Amino acid sequence: MAVGLGPLPELKPISGVRIAVVEAGVRYKNRRDLVLFELAASSVTAAVLTQNAFCAAPIQITRHHLDVASPRYWLVNTGNANAGTGQEGLVHCRHTCNALAKLAGEPEWTILPFSTGVIGEPLPAQRIVDALPLALQSLSDSAWNEAAIGIMTTDTLPKGGSRQFEVSGQVYTLTGIAKGAGMIRPNMATMLAFLATDMAVEKSLLQSILSDATQPSFNRITIDGDTSTNDACVLVATGKANVTPINDARSAEAQALSAQVQSLMLELAQMIVRDGEGATKFITVHVQGGLDTQECCDVAYAVAHSPLVKTAFFASDPNWGRILAAIGRAGVPELDVNKVQVWLNDLRICWLGAADPEYREVLGAEVMKAAEIIVRIDLGRGEAEDRVYTCDFSYDYVKINADYRS
Amino acid sequence: MAVGLGPLPELKPISGVRIAVVEAGVRYKNRRDLVLFELAASSVTAAVLTQNAFCAAPIQITRHHLDVASPRYWLVNTGNANAGTGQEGLVHCRHTCNALAKLAGEPEWTILPFSTGVIGEPLPAQRIVDALPLALQSLSDSAWNEAAIGIMTTDTLPKGGSRQFEVSGQVYTLTGIAKGAGMIRPNMATMLAFLATDMAVEKSLLQSILSDATQPSFNRITIDGDTSTNDACVLVATGKANVTPINDARSAEAQALSAQVQSLMLELAQMIVRDGEGATKFITVHVQGGLDTQECCDVAYAVAHSPLVKTAFFASDPNWGRILAAIGRAGVPELDVNKVQVWLNDLRICWLGAADPEYREVLGAEVMKAAEIIVRIDLGRGEAEDRVYTCDFSYDYVKINADYRS
Repeated sequence: MAVGLGPLPELKPISGVRIAVVEAGVRYKNRRDLVLFELAASSVTAAVLTQNAFCAAPIQITRHHLDVASPRYWLVNTGNANAGTGQEGLVHCRHTCNALAKLAGEPEWTILPFSTGVIGEPLPAQRIVDALPLALQSLSDSAWNEAAIGIMTTDTLPKGGSRQFEVSGQVYTLTGIAKGAGMIRPNMATMLAFLATDMAVEKSLLQSILSDATQPSFNRITIDGDTSTNDACVLVATGKANVTPINDARSAEAQALSAQVQSLMLELAQMIVRDGEGATKFITVHVQGGLDTQECCDVAYAVAHSPLVKTAFFASDPNWGRILAAIGRAGVPELDVNKVQVWLNDLRICWLGAADPEYREVLGAEVMKAAEIIVRIDLGRGEAEDRVYTCDFSYDYVKINADYRS
Repeated sequence: MAVGLGPLPELKPISGVRIAVVEAGVRYKNRRDLVLFELAASSVTAAVLTQNAFCAAPIQITRHHLDVASPRYWLVNTGNANAGTGQEGLVHCRHTCNALAKLAGEPEWTILPFSTGVIGEPLPAQRIVDALPLALQSLSDSAWNEAAIGIMTTDTLPKGGSRQFEVSGQVYTLTGIAKGAGMIRPNMATMLAFLATDMAVEKSLLQSILSDATQPSFNRITIDGDTSTNDACVLVATGKANVTPINDARSAEAQALSAQVQSLMLELAQMIVRDGEGATKFITVHVQGGLDTQECCDVAYAVAHSPLVKTAFFASDPNWGRILAAIGRAGVPELDVNKVQVWLNDLRICWLGAADPEYREVLGAEVMKAAEIIVRIDLGRGEAEDRVYTCDFSYDYVKINADYRS
């Protein structure tokens, strides 16, 4: 039921990144559920990780390893989140890192582990360890498409994209993949996104490029308001395309990379919403005329999280009263409702806090039929604006989440 | 599908309150959709009203009238919320108050209007006006049960209760009714509750009794997180049972009334959750061991609003990882997850931030089968506690809200 999400394009390899996708049998048999990324020694990695207090064991270890060394491997499993698993979860995660470190002949701090799947069940670490030799033998330059499939859980389609761009006669490549369809309301990061470029970039600059790009992309999507325990988005710069690391944020290279990362991350983030659990509609909530970003986001999330608004979109019902009610409860101080306007695409439905005199239900119903809709809200009190991306709430959302695990 | 909600008991009349329930045809024919309460001249009214910025026209007018005069009539219609209707909505609402004032020979400030139903459509005020003469002729001492039915919208069962209590040899009576099944996450009030007692009580004391009772009852329930535009809870003291108004909060009468109002309002609030749209389970989220009430409520609402937790309850799936994830994203500063414990009824499922070693999935599944479940969460950092009441998220929730209006 993914909305406007086509087949995965051919993802471009990144020099300095090799990938293997193998079966470990973490939860299901006959499923390639383990993805191993090998990064060139020249690589620099930036990461943003979940702010959920119950963050998973692999997130805790990834955070620690990033402080200690430059990563050489990303080890990703699906089928088990290794979250809510306490001290035992850390032991299991270290066991997999240790085994890979020995086989690869690298310190274990160079390994970043990532897990996604069911929360609260012990990670079958030995199954992952047993699959590592084959994974190391299978590393390939051109397995990004297989990796995008390998990291899926309740996703119905794989998600990824590539960009090539030229700066001062040098061509650079950027490729990224992402997964996630439920428990999606990222906070500083999202449910597993992996990006790589062959540009050489100094670490703090790379981190700021990634962090900046996270705000308008993964930090502006919501499917169900539930921030995951395992969100992670990592970006590696392998340094294979140029020799001297870029370290000036104002340089043409840094500006170009930043623009490309933002563009790709927004595309990946929107892909996650398009494939939201049970989604039949892709909805952009665009709030403008706010005093600051915070109140624009508060209003946008109140609308995007409202089960009443989301079920109305599912029903293609232009029940704009539910949108007004959500705006009204968003906690904007001293909101003058008589200045609020609301549009569905280009159709103004609300003006001066009530129905637009020109509005007719038949016009609203026509707009609501579309699979992609922009709800634009003007608060009429300032210059700030922001956008949040979400999907509708359908029978299938309930079905997927009542059936998952069983 | 209401959970543990029986037929309406025989509601006790309150001396000084007469009620009429008639057909006005606001939205549907052959539906008694207009309820008129007449209050004795000795009556004192207290009220709590929605904090939604897009509050409805009748709420704005009720707020104004309460400031000016002592109410003699409550005029309640279903089928149309008269919210999101701007200046025209105020004109329509005043038209109904004016007409009633003329017929009754009282100033219009003595009339409190209440509306519930679809948001954003013009109130057919004339239909209400046309029904007023019959309503005034039909006033009766014993129509509380009919009124409980008259104020229903998507409710599947009427909601009400009565209390009789004795203080210093004098018997007092308290009766209340409520409605609401969707757009329920009251903020300072809820979707239409009407209570009356025959005790004589001074106005500011009555208001503080009502406000105090609202916090642990209507302000602690949520069905979908959507605060309504029309929430209102009013309590009238007709003064028919005693002559001198009670004005000391420490008096036996005030203490007894306060206890009875709290008990009845908690019952009414829970009735609303039991009849939540599509509800198959009644869930109490009890958070203890917090530093203060605010963080207990933040955690309780994060759990109670999580679509993932709510669909797991619908599926009777003890997927406690979703509860942990909700706790972790609730924004409690410096939460030590290793001190968090979670119970389903008396079964401890989570201990030291991970699965309890004694926990077995089969035990969790057994508890989850019940129609009423207490989720108890101990944050292990303080003495504060609070409770929030909610229901699950079912196919029928989507069905009801995708079909409503059509």
